[in-house]
Amino acid sequence: MHTLVELQKVIEVKLKEKKCKETPSELYQPIVYALEAGGKRIRPALCLMICQLFAEDYSNALPAALALEIFHNFTLLHDDIMDKAEMRRNKLTVHKKWDENTAILSGDAMMILAYSYLEDLPDEIQTRIFILFNKTALEVCEGQQYDINFEHRETVNIDEYLEMIRLKTAVLIAACLQIGAICGGSNNQEAELMYNLGIHMGLAFQLQDDYLDSFGDPVIFGKKNGGDIIANKKTFLLIKALELAKGDDLNELTYWLQETNSKADEKIKSVIEIYRNLCLDQILRKKIDDYYIKCKDVLKKLNIEENKLISLHHFIDKLAARNL
Amino acid sequence: MHTLVELQKVIEVKLKEKKCKETPSELYQPIVYALEAGGKRIRPALCLMICQLFAEDYSNALPAALALEIFHNFTLLHDDIMDKAEMRRNKLTVHKKWDENTAILSGDAMMILAYSYLEDLPDEIQTRIFILFNKTALEVCEGQQYDINFEHRETVNIDEYLEMIRLKTAVLIAACLQIGAICGGSNNQEAELMYNLGIHMGLAFQLQDDYLDSFGDPVIFGKKNGGDIIANKKTFLLIKALELAKGDDLNELTYWLQETNSKADEKIKSVIEIYRNLCLDQILRKKIDDYYIKCKDVLKKLNIEENKLISLHHFIDKLAARNL
Repeated sequence: MHTLVELQKVIEVKLKEKKCKETPSELYQPIVYALEAGGKRIRPALCLMICQLFAEDYSNALPAALALEIFHNFTLLHDDIMDKAEMRRNKLTVHKKWDENTAILSGDAMMILAYSYLEDLPDEIQTRIFILFNKTALEVCEGQQYDINFEHRETVNIDEYLEMIRLKTAVLIAACLQIGAICGGSNNQEAELMYNLGIHMGLAFQLQDDYLDSFGDPVIFGKKNGGDIIANKKTFLLIKALELAKGDDLNELTYWLQETNSKADEKIKSVIEIYRNLCLDQILRKKIDDYYIKCKDVLKKLNIEENKLISLHHFIDKLAARNL
Repeated sequence: MHTLVELQKVIEVKLKEKKCKETPSELYQPIVYALEAGGKRIRPALCLMICQLFAEDYSNALPAALALEIFHNFTLLHDDIMDKAEMRRNKLTVHKKWDENTAILSGDAMMILAYSYLEDLPDEIQTRIFILFNKTALEVCEGQQYDINFEHRETVNIDEYLEMIRLKTAVLIAACLQIGAICGGSNNQEAELMYNLGIHMGLAFQLQDDYLDSFGDPVIFGKKNGGDIIANKKTFLLIKALELAKGDDLNELTYWLQETNSKADEKIKSVIEIYRNLCLDQILRKKIDDYYIKCKDVLKKLNIEENKLISLHHFIDKLAARNL
């Protein structure tokens, strides 16, 4: 069995060999650029890892793993246009390096390229995976739409927020795991369990992002705190804070939400303090840990020898520690 | 056998029953809007018509016909953003009625929706059609890219132009015909012939568009002449004119290409006169008719009873007369 790191490398190599034409270069160069910008290749590596649990090797899952990774990168490319993001992985975004029209059209071609990898799946599972891929791809668009909607809404509740991140982030990870299982020859029940595992992982991962923005150690995580706070982003923390805060905390939070000209550092410091007053660090930590416990529970339900599950356990532990 | 008009109605009805979710409405309403804006449904109706040539009825081709029509409308939606077009079929374009981000994301979802129709194809032909669909979809993007590139280039030659319209317009029509044939149970040779028929049709159709812009009767075709001329669009006529013109004609044409502040009507009148001096009306008419002759030649090669081919002959004649 291959380790996660080995599988990440397999994906990296196979992406470089991709069956992408060269002309017109204006269409295909941005795709190569977006795919070679890096990223940890966690999703496709997980897909291969799960395949290995059920099969001799990962090869049956390779076309689908690549399709899923290319689809994911396509969504980033189009999301970056919508968010007017200038940088991604320390490189200019495609619509900044080229222009918006290039980013729209290359993104479209990239989605088609993702689909074309599914052509190489074994016949007997192709339709099943195609159906799951379509359903997931549409849900990711729905998640992005809810994310956009929430920016313009006065209030969002926690259930709505969890549903948004389930669609935007978790279902694609869940599809990676389930497709890996199907390609490995799992039965239906095992495939379902893998889907659920992916949902729990995805939700934990996204909530951890929210957590780290306020409570992460910037030295360890290489990211400045408070980006979400400055943007008034309706994350788990802000939504829950508005639900729980009373009296002075509520007044102060409301003040900071309306304050846009103040010094950023003061706003971040004050809002984090309110979050701590409301014990949101503990509440969110508990929520995240619950999802990791659910992940481990799923693994217990699998009828697979423990030693085969080591790398998956290891991955979940690393994910929980944000040490990937 | 059903007539083209009947098949167009079938498509219209089936599109209304489409398996499109309702929420988030911000994602799905623009898709419904774009699909209900009309259009003649020629592509999917042709797909069904060709299926009927080889099978008892058109039903095997229905999922693919709908996928192709939805894909076509997706390309219009994204092309309209790139072209900054404000109107399409007498209605505001999606990015004008909503905004650009909505048009990007709804377009993405629309492409996925198109793919999801292919799930319903019979198993034994699904992979073959999926491969052809992917190849075609990518080529349509390439065609759009060349079209964009040509706007920024000094010169384009006729072969490059024909290759661009082959990719942007003809391959999708060709895929409609070939997929219709495959769904009807044609053999490989027949499927190839249908593809070629579609290419000839598509090229004839697009060149006819160029022709009508300068030489069409605005009363009959309901479209003002000269749009391409005002935009200095590198159509067959302008490319060929720059190739053939000498002396005064060339000087005058060059003058009008640089002249942007003049009265539009004078520019149109003068450029059309140059085109007529160069006999471009006859040259292009001949080129178009040659493609229609090629269409008819393909039909002769088919081993299908003449009476089954009547509606297809009729369609080609109507297309040639632009009387659809």
